[in-house]
Amino acid sequence: MLFIELDRTHERTYAKQIYVQIRKKIISGLLKAGDRLPSTRELSKGLGVARNTVLTAYELLVSEEFVYSIPGAGFFVTTEITWEKRPIPIVNSTVASLADMVLPSDLINFDSGLPALDLFPRSKWNHAAANALNEAPSSVLGYDDPQGRPELREALSGYLKRTRGIECGPEQIIITSGTKQGLTLVAKTLLNDKSEVWIEDPTNENVKQIFSYHTDKMIPFRVDALGIQPHLFPSDRKPTLIFVTPSHQFPMGGILPIKRRLELVEFARKSGCYILEDDYDSEFTYQGLPANSLFEFDSEHVIHAGTFSKTMFPSLRVGYLVVPKKLVPSIREWKRLADHHSNSIYQLALMRFMESGALERHIRRMKKVYLSRRDQLLLLLRKCFVEKVTVYGFHAGMHIVAEFEGGSFPEETIQQLLNRGIYVVPVEKHAIVKGNHSSQIILGYASLCYDDMERGLEILKEVLEEHY
Amino acid sequence: MLFIELDRTHERTYAKQIYVQIRKKIISGLLKAGDRLPSTRELSKGLGVARNTVLTAYELLVSEEFVYSIPGAGFFVTTEITWEKRPIPIVNSTVASLADMVLPSDLINFDSGLPALDLFPRSKWNHAAANALNEAPSSVLGYDDPQGRPELREALSGYLKRTRGIECGPEQIIITSGTKQGLTLVAKTLLNDKSEVWIEDPTNENVKQIFSYHTDKMIPFRVDALGIQPHLFPSDRKPTLIFVTPSHQFPMGGILPIKRRLELVEFARKSGCYILEDDYDSEFTYQGLPANSLFEFDSEHVIHAGTFSKTMFPSLRVGYLVVPKKLVPSIREWKRLADHHSNSIYQLALMRFMESGALERHIRRMKKVYLSRRDQLLLLLRKCFVEKVTVYGFHAGMHIVAEFEGGSFPEETIQQLLNRGIYVVPVEKHAIVKGNHSSQIILGYASLCYDDMERGLEILKEVLEEHY
Repeated sequence: MLFIELDRTHERTYAKQIYVQIRKKIISGLLKAGDRLPSTRELSKGLGVARNTVLTAYELLVSEEFVYSIPGAGFFVTTEITWEKRPIPIVNSTVASLADMVLPSDLINFDSGLPALDLFPRSKWNHAAANALNEAPSSVLGYDDPQGRPELREALSGYLKRTRGIECGPEQIIITSGTKQGLTLVAKTLLNDKSEVWIEDPTNENVKQIFSYHTDKMIPFRVDALGIQPHLFPSDRKPTLIFVTPSHQFPMGGILPIKRRLELVEFARKSGCYILEDDYDSEFTYQGLPANSLFEFDSEHVIHAGTFSKTMFPSLRVGYLVVPKKLVPSIREWKRLADHHSNSIYQLALMRFMESGALERHIRRMKKVYLSRRDQLLLLLRKCFVEKVTVYGFHAGMHIVAEFEGGSFPEETIQQLLNRGIYVVPVEKHAIVKGNHSSQIILGYASLCYDDMERGLEILKEVLEEHY
Repeated sequence: MLFIELDRTHERTYAKQIYVQIRKKIISGLLKAGDRLPSTRELSKGLGVARNTVLTAYELLVSEEFVYSIPGAGFFVTTEITWEKRPIPIVNSTVASLADMVLPSDLINFDSGLPALDLFPRSKWNHAAANALNEAPSSVLGYDDPQGRPELREALSGYLKRTRGIECGPEQIIITSGTKQGLTLVAKTLLNDKSEVWIEDPTNENVKQIFSYHTDKMIPFRVDALGIQPHLFPSDRKPTLIFVTPSHQFPMGGILPIKRRLELVEFARKSGCYILEDDYDSEFTYQGLPANSLFEFDSEHVIHAGTFSKTMFPSLRVGYLVVPKKLVPSIREWKRLADHHSNSIYQLALMRFMESGALERHIRRMKKVYLSRRDQLLLLLRKCFVEKVTVYGFHAGMHIVAEFEGGSFPEETIQQLLNRGIYVVPVEKHAIVKGNHSSQIILGYASLCYDDMERGLEILKEVLEEHY
């Protein structure tokens, strides 16, 4: 019989206590892959709680993939999760070089864009990668097509059509080593020192850094709750490029309404500029279908950037650009000069992973997990901060923005939080015009379990209260 | 009994005929991994040739790893080679875009820098990669250290000490996605539009292209048979960077004498410039030990660039820079902006491959194969062109330069050769001052078997004769 102890005085519900204790037993290895959990009836009787309480705990474990159920047979510990085996501590540093730092792995990391890495199906990926290498002709080990393996581009073209409504041939796709590289390739192709780039404010700090190497003229446009506001564009200026994140504005989280999408595309057509659409986490939408891609509306003025960092895992370093036909030769040549091409075997493995349906299955699973984690985070925020917190951008993606009444997040506060084991990024870090977002932080939730979120928010609350 | 038919009228020796026919049977699958070949006595008796003839054929097969011998037991078909399973034809194009083209896989490709890809131990690599993923903590799947996995840098630091006499800590190593990227990172770190870069002439065309994006001032220094000539450096000018290939000048193949190495380093110290040493194929030396790395003499003015493209395989896309300590933060930050970091799992796999000794074993094996292929090429050249050919740069690496008396290689000739199924690169392609190398071509031999070399040179001879 599973040893579970309920603390009747704890403010955590019984269901949550059962969930937390079973989860710990799985992670520590006390419960092993394939082990059957006690039936809900057995356990509820043993603990003296309602059967429904046990069921709730089990369902939470199922939603996070710790456990799976076989109707009629019961609940079993899942087999596909690979647990941490030997955490490798990595040197830390100060906030001054945050952009550059590698975080220790035991930190409660609220950074955005981190998927639930412990739920990635490693054995399936190993299988795809081994088959890809075994069956590749020797020529695939040599210097390869800078644009990317034709097989992967073919698979991706089908995937983008199915999931994003994007109609593009494989010849319009360029495989990149991630979006940072994609942005650099676009910048090298389109910009010179006379070029003007219009960007959202706030926008990802890396984006600003990358473009700033290619032009001095970056004009920020403040976003509202829905995203960029094309009616604010001056009619007497012409940019070379507009950088936007319409599916889920980074970091504020707005989903750009269809009207503004059409205005954007119309503006690009009239002025003859290009739009770079960074579609970094559009796979995870929690309300209705993913919004249309701008590329769908105009394949001559829109460059669509996508990544496998969120749907697979970041250290894979594979992304892609879908580009207007006339830009292909130039972007392809810049890719060749940058790193010749991205690793071919992993490209073929990714093709197999997509073609077998494993990628889309993994995305569907993660969508459930992230939705449940988002809800947990929203509830915890409400519980900890009651009326003092306002939340933005929770309809999609892997992070939200939380605004704290009277709160502020200068460097000392962030460092103080870091010293206490939690990492959060202030929205101000990504703001171009400073001062408008000082009470807001980004809270990534996709990689965090309930316990960590709870502990993290408690520490956040204490630190904020010390400053009042 | 193995069916082998000897053609008594063929100009090919019996040994060669036996070798070719057994090789074909292995490739076609008629002879399978582990099959025992007939004993030399059996076969020599059956064919009516000297036993030594059969032994010569068998030794050739052993040197190319088609067959291995167990003393006392006989000769067996090797197990570790993965043969072509489904050649994927890739679109061809014209010479005009050679730099950009992807060659069809049935071409006899004399391009330089292509290892013997069919001899790469795939199963060992799959094993290392699967273990790397299985045993990595989840954090390794996330955004990782831009400088590269500490474990790989540690292993590499040991490897460089063992094989190149380079003393450097892991903190001085930056893992790149190949040398092209390494060059870009160095250029971004050191160059502005006032910077002067001194380069060898001829030098790899890609190198020129990469630097030309960062500066207009590139000064070529003609190499002689031994490499760059520091006594030609003007004393009244100061470059920011000198790019050299001292271990095996590309493409001419000179190995820079120690005296010039010291002069180079001395010049850098006095003028305060940096030297970028591209050590692209130094693992393969056929005479004595590999020459000293410039980094050994001065770790403050020399940047050492290395690659796994030649020792492993090109489409792996992993290389490294060993850099003076004060350049680390800046190069690391440029790497972060370029593609955040290189694929982490493959970095860990490479670490395992090195630590297990598999990499050095593979290099030792390939050194034997390449030496034998080089000798085959030299003999074939002599046989085909007798006194009309002069050969340069054969003491190291994976290619030679061949100069044909009265020959010339304009674009039409290269295209004509391409139409007849062979690909060669003229030295002129890499020349900065044009016209000095018009009768020279580069002949890469590492990836070519005897038959292909022979057929390739016969075609080359025919085409050259048509032009006389």
